[in-house]
Amino acid sequence: MKQIAHIGIAVNNLDEAIERYTVLLNTPCCKKEVVTHQQVEVAFFQLNNHKIELLAATSPESPIARFLHKKGEGMHHVAYSVENIKQEMERLIKEGFTPLQENPYPGADNKWVAFFHPNSTHGVLTELCMDMDNER
Amino acid sequence: MKQIAHIGIAVNNLDEAIERYTVLLNTPCCKKEVVTHQQVEVAFFQLNNHKIELLAATSPESPIARFLHKKGEGMHHVAYSVENIKQEMERLIKEGFTPLQENPYPGADNKWVAFFHPNSTHGVLTELCMDMDNER
Repeated sequence: MKQIAHIGIAVNNLDEAIERYTVLLNTPCCKKEVVTHQQVEVAFFQLNNHKIELLAATSPESPIARFLHKKGEGMHHVAYSVENIKQEMERLIKEGFTPLQENPYPGADNKWVAFFHPNSTHGVLTELCMDMDNER
Repeated sequence: MKQIAHIGIAVNNLDEAIERYTVLLNTPCCKKEVVTHQQVEVAFFQLNNHKIELLAATSPESPIARFLHKKGEGMHHVAYSVENIKQEMERLIKEGFTPLQENPYPGADNKWVAFFHPNSTHGVLTELCMDMDNER
């Protein structure tokens, strides 16, 4: 893993949370985006070389809606940037980490993404991500 | 806020978690430390300019023991580094965020730290931290 790319925070109301985090972080939201296939709307704040991502559900069937229903608002995942997402997935699978998909897929912020189950990472939903400019 | 200083992950068994995160992050643990007044033992991994902190309880009365009992292993807090922790605390209190202490106090990793309650940050226990070399 190269570094933390972002942390993801699940929120009930995206606009309210953007307003709050703009004050907390003392920096404006730099991007809003709907990720249709994940049924989420997200907002990013840039701090130095990483981001804070706020995630709200766009449908009751969204994974974020289920998370909020079960756990309430709060930390949802941590994402690490990697050089080669396929190679890193293979390495982690060999080491016994539990992938949530067979192959990386397009996520928010122009990245290839892949998730690993919290049961293999001491309770932390863990994302790998790689800029789409890189080879998958 | 300058940047994410670290994310904190609550774990049941520190040595097991260190072993797992050494593999996950593909980097060795860089520091272990007992923070007596918080009744925790912590381990840090450095990635680029920020850290991953694993926290285990050293007593059943530790805040981490209570967290683990209630929520299980997982993301516990996010820490942001700041230039001037007293000023930043004052700014956030004026903005309606809920501090968990009156003044910054010495935390792990040679830092002054201050925490804000998750009820004012959309469910995220939020830490400010500043190197002890800086003026408090």
